[in-house]
Amino acid sequence: MSDPLNAFVPEDTVNIEGAPGGPLSGLRFAVKDIFDVAGHVTGGGNPDWAATHGPAETTAPVVSSLLEAGATLIGKTNTDELTRGLLGVNSHFGTPVNPAAPERVPGGSSSGSAAAVAGKLVDFALGSDTGGSVRIPASFCGIYGIRPTHGRIALQGLIEQAPSYDTIGWFANDADIFAKVGGVLFGAESGEQKPARLVIAEDVYEIASAPVLKAHEKALEALRSLAVESESLSLCPTDLADWQKAMHTLQQWEANRSFGDWIDATNPRFGYDVAQRFVSAAAMSEEEMKAAEPVRQSHRERMAEVLTPGTVIVLPSAPGPAPLKGLKKSEMWNMRWGITALTCIAGGAGLPQVTLPLCHLDGLPVGISLIGCKDSDEDLLALARQVAGRV
Amino acid sequence: MSDPLNAFVPEDTVNIEGAPGGPLSGLRFAVKDIFDVAGHVTGGGNPDWAATHGPAETTAPVVSSLLEAGATLIGKTNTDELTRGLLGVNSHFGTPVNPAAPERVPGGSSSGSAAAVAGKLVDFALGSDTGGSVRIPASFCGIYGIRPTHGRIALQGLIEQAPSYDTIGWFANDADIFAKVGGVLFGAESGEQKPARLVIAEDVYEIASAPVLKAHEKALEALRSLAVESESLSLCPTDLADWQKAMHTLQQWEANRSFGDWIDATNPRFGYDVAQRFVSAAAMSEEEMKAAEPVRQSHRERMAEVLTPGTVIVLPSAPGPAPLKGLKKSEMWNMRWGITALTCIAGGAGLPQVTLPLCHLDGLPVGISLIGCKDSDEDLLALARQVAGRV
Repeated sequence: MSDPLNAFVPEDTVNIEGAPGGPLSGLRFAVKDIFDVAGHVTGGGNPDWAATHGPAETTAPVVSSLLEAGATLIGKTNTDELTRGLLGVNSHFGTPVNPAAPERVPGGSSSGSAAAVAGKLVDFALGSDTGGSVRIPASFCGIYGIRPTHGRIALQGLIEQAPSYDTIGWFANDADIFAKVGGVLFGAESGEQKPARLVIAEDVYEIASAPVLKAHEKALEALRSLAVESESLSLCPTDLADWQKAMHTLQQWEANRSFGDWIDATNPRFGYDVAQRFVSAAAMSEEEMKAAEPVRQSHRERMAEVLTPGTVIVLPSAPGPAPLKGLKKSEMWNMRWGITALTCIAGGAGLPQVTLPLCHLDGLPVGISLIGCKDSDEDLLALARQVAGRV
Repeated sequence: MSDPLNAFVPEDTVNIEGAPGGPLSGLRFAVKDIFDVAGHVTGGGNPDWAATHGPAETTAPVVSSLLEAGATLIGKTNTDELTRGLLGVNSHFGTPVNPAAPERVPGGSSSGSAAAVAGKLVDFALGSDTGGSVRIPASFCGIYGIRPTHGRIALQGLIEQAPSYDTIGWFANDADIFAKVGGVLFGAESGEQKPARLVIAEDVYEIASAPVLKAHEKALEALRSLAVESESLSLCPTDLADWQKAMHTLQQWEANRSFGDWIDATNPRFGYDVAQRFVSAAAMSEEEMKAAEPVRQSHRERMAEVLTPGTVIVLPSAPGPAPLKGLKKSEMWNMRWGITALTCIAGGAGLPQVTLPLCHLDGLPVGISLIGCKDSDEDLLALARQVAGRV
């Protein structure tokens, strides 16, 4: 397979026809190389992970569901190492091309899945989202992306990073296909439905770059026109950085639990920034971890308070468009920190979020996001379809 | 060139005939791949270092001196990444074979040079020693190795790690060749000469494994018989760990100064343990660094006090024989810490040390070392020749 976008895992050819006659029949998809496909090594974006793991014995249930629904799997896609990254930079396998902005990074960690969708090599693609790994590449590449309600799609047959944050999500170019995949994975599609209340997240727009709000104006207008009522408010009563730090702490703690023993046994090669994060994860104390728990709890309570039934929150998916390639390590670090201030909002509270490719800034995609109540995933997908026709 | 020991840098053929008629005429040597050889990339044991540096324009003066003295350069050798390691494990290029103990690591960072000498692929080989990188592989592979007086051979045309500790050293199988190279690089050889006083380093033998002292007994006897007088004493009036920590701190500080900007610009791939050390180096505070300086100063003063003219200190080169391959990362860390308690003694004080391949423990080499006064390098080489005939 020719791979001009460096979207696919090299030297491994996966091609499995979908079952005939399903709802996804005729669609082609790819999966991030953290999902098991029987007979293939799940590489996780790290050569030493691949070298220390044999071929998967069974296929991940989420992949099987899509195949049974008729979609054809055409490949596995590149990822940031062990899903540890938000920019799509992989020191071993290179950075997939962002088809919407070839000078810029595609975002990560589900970088290859986003590139394959944005480049129209597939109709949809599976990714995972722990701290933004679907929402950020979707925003940077100008495509649809969803981080479902935490626990809505069971974590099985994939490399887990931080299980209390890990979710399985996907990308599509088209709001109909985007929703159709949800129909298969959630078991139901939602019909057209007005959100009772639209909440514009004031504090989040304040930390995104000012031109982002301007770029979102038309889409915001379309969303307002679809809602019964709308208002602006600040999500976090203290400082978004509090929620962000709590997520960072707990995610690091869990990532160390997921990978620490393997790292000790293998002494693997990592890009320096990835190693650096694992070093800091390993250094985290149980006290720090325990101090973060009540912050996550109050974060969840506050979000439940804002999200009365039928409420949808609107916020920017990322602080701005995709950054240029060739960032220094220290710049990558700052960039990542800027991003998780936004992605922690749904991530820390386990809420569903979709990002819509409706807005541009200087010709570059800047995603606009919707966060809904727990388990309102189908409603968000339905709303995405409605707005798509209005912007 | 066939390379059964994985001693040599792959895909780069260096072959330069020595000048005719010199004192090293007829000898073949190799150099650690941190020394510049005009027209070749100095790889430093890291693929991203190699990728971000062009071919060297000039040859390192120390290499030129050896070529002018008649030795023929036949290759560049593998090294721990950027000289950061003591075991000879390189996550990118593999671990050179220890010809004296093929199940065990060769020691590092001058791993390939030691393997090439011990495997008799060359007559001698250049390495570098910052915190033990010649002495340890020499001890583990059962060959001669020298860390010269700091500053005795100018640091020019090589990758520097921690300049106030870095030295250029070499390996040989044979005490005569070992001394001959010194004759060229120091400008003079020393004649036969009795040490006025032999000091057995009691505190160092206490922290080496007990059987090491037993394995050294015959060599100690031979050394005693060559000296005018001998005694046992403790080198460090407090705890060797104090000297060790000070060296660790200052070396880390300098290593960060040497490589920090490059790491930030490149975000290179590293084996995890190497990355971990750079992370901790970057986190070091100026206060820690400044607090270590007076400890190094008192270390130097104590060593000068012990090393009255004609004194030679005897100590084990390493805490024990080479460890088995396949260590966990955490075991590597402990192993390294055990080693630098010994190597810091000459290293922190800038003193010359030679390690002699005269002793074995269960068939495995355990080097015995001599530390001399500042600039007594030639005398140590001469003493090494004398003892060689007596064990």
